[in-house]
Amino acid sequence: MTSELDFIAALRALATAPEARGLKDDAALLGRLVLTHDMIAQGVHTLATDPPESVAAKLVAVTLSDLAAKGATPVGVLLGYCLGDGEWDRRFLAGLGEALAHYDCKLLGGDTIAVPGPRVLGLTAIGEAGDRTPDRSGARAGDGLWLIGPLGDSAAGLAMLLADPAATGPLVDAYQRPRALIAEGRALALHAGAMMDVSDGLLIDARRLAAASRVRIDIDLAALPLSPAFIAARGDDRTARLFAATGGDDYALLAALPPGAEQIVTKSLPSGAQMTRIGRLVAGAGIALNDAGEPVDLPEHLGHEHHA
Amino acid sequence: MTSELDFIAALRALATAPEARGLKDDAALLGRLVLTHDMIAQGVHTLATDPPESVAAKLVAVTLSDLAAKGATPVGVLLGYCLGDGEWDRRFLAGLGEALAHYDCKLLGGDTIAVPGPRVLGLTAIGEAGDRTPDRSGARAGDGLWLIGPLGDSAAGLAMLLADPAATGPLVDAYQRPRALIAEGRALALHAGAMMDVSDGLLIDARRLAAASRVRIDIDLAALPLSPAFIAARGDDRTARLFAATGGDDYALLAALPPGAEQIVTKSLPSGAQMTRIGRLVAGAGIALNDAGEPVDLPEHLGHEHHA
Repeated sequence: MTSELDFIAALRALATAPEARGLKDDAALLGRLVLTHDMIAQGVHTLATDPPESVAAKLVAVTLSDLAAKGATPVGVLLGYCLGDGEWDRRFLAGLGEALAHYDCKLLGGDTIAVPGPRVLGLTAIGEAGDRTPDRSGARAGDGLWLIGPLGDSAAGLAMLLADPAATGPLVDAYQRPRALIAEGRALALHAGAMMDVSDGLLIDARRLAAASRVRIDIDLAALPLSPAFIAARGDDRTARLFAATGGDDYALLAALPPGAEQIVTKSLPSGAQMTRIGRLVAGAGIALNDAGEPVDLPEHLGHEHHA
Repeated sequence: MTSELDFIAALRALATAPEARGLKDDAALLGRLVLTHDMIAQGVHTLATDPPESVAAKLVAVTLSDLAAKGATPVGVLLGYCLGDGEWDRRFLAGLGEALAHYDCKLLGGDTIAVPGPRVLGLTAIGEAGDRTPDRSGARAGDGLWLIGPLGDSAAGLAMLLADPAATGPLVDAYQRPRALIAEGRALALHAGAMMDVSDGLLIDARRLAAASRVRIDIDLAALPLSPAFIAARGDDRTARLFAATGGDDYALLAALPPGAEQIVTKSLPSGAQMTRIGRLVAGAGIALNDAGEPVDLPEHLGHEHHA
């Protein structure tokens, strides 16, 4: 098996066009369009037992989340689909239609093949850029670190499903049917120095943002917004908070905002959206953790590491 | 296994946006951009023994051929890649870089995953539309049917490889390393009533063009342009011509041109490109074959049928 990091490094050597943003972003910017492609393998990035409707919902959300992180509005998708059994395919399409309708996003085309082995699904999403398209590199020391969206719910839901495949509830929903925060991304993008979606885990993704912006990020575990369902399942002690900060599959938005910007952003957020300040950017490198001011050692695993 | 045709029919019910062109085209038109997505499974759409460089070349050509058929100029691609062993991956990337450079096309982004099972590769290509973007539906009775590009070479090369995995030569090259006819497509698109690339076989693809344009297409087997290498390997009798007309994987361009247009098109073709009149469009439906005027029954298999 090739190192995924080595492979991506070799890919970067090919992706010299400025539109590719060095492949350091999850999306390319081509004129006014933002383009991204994501793949999911059934049973690898989802559980083999996940309902096909939710696999479709997840594929759409995971991909559109990359548009959300650019403040882009979804326009359309191209689907790459591996056919399986008819009932699964039918239910997947039902979920796909529902998910695309939710985002007011068009199915534009794609390709369908039949292959043995795990079902590999690809989705290319095209979005229209807003007035600003932040990447990961524009954060400055002095900015606040803000989070919108769930944290830890998805990882808690996955843990529940692994213990009991029949588990249900809001945490399982968060794992199986995440939502891309399109409207929230649009509001944040106008003011964020840097933004990305949290897909591999807050800590590992924050470290990537810090590296791209050449700053240090201090994160306060005590400030992490945990849902009532999460707290009911796993508590809210430091162990639970570290679990939430490293679990991944959140599709929350992480943004660096200059002082004062949060008041403007808050006014344009959709109703119900909560924006939480979870840390700050300072001169330096890497990330540092504290728990209401008390320094905390970084855990060994910051999130989903790509195979090194 | 779902019927691929049933699945595509269900997809079409979702793809109601005009940009999707009812999924009856191999590409979507979004403003000035033409978008297409293709998938290849290693060992299914290629031979397991095909060199990784040529798998990359084929993936790029197959995808860009859909842009060529729209008269679009390639701008960039997004790659969906399943990691395998390091040597294969390294050689694939080398081939990808070479293929993209050939088409002056940028690597813009994508996704990389690691899964068991056959390697599934997806490529989304984005092209800039020319002044006209033909689809399959605009051909009229009275138009001539024209072909640019190889016919039968790829199928002959595949047959050679199946008989002898060590086979080499121009026919094997045609199978392993097809070329998307970008400049030819640009020239044709300005005048073609309808155009498509020949990927599943001339006869089956011509039937699709006839159905979309609500005309009948008469094809003259004697007019099919066969390469010297093809004739050397398989002769040029009727059997050989039917083999060439049904083999597929050609990535030739098939266009309906109004009378007189070929003289204008010919002037703007790249040097070396040969455009051959292989038939005509008349009132009616379906396709009909003749061999220098003598009617010929349609073969049972017109090309690669998607699983019905």
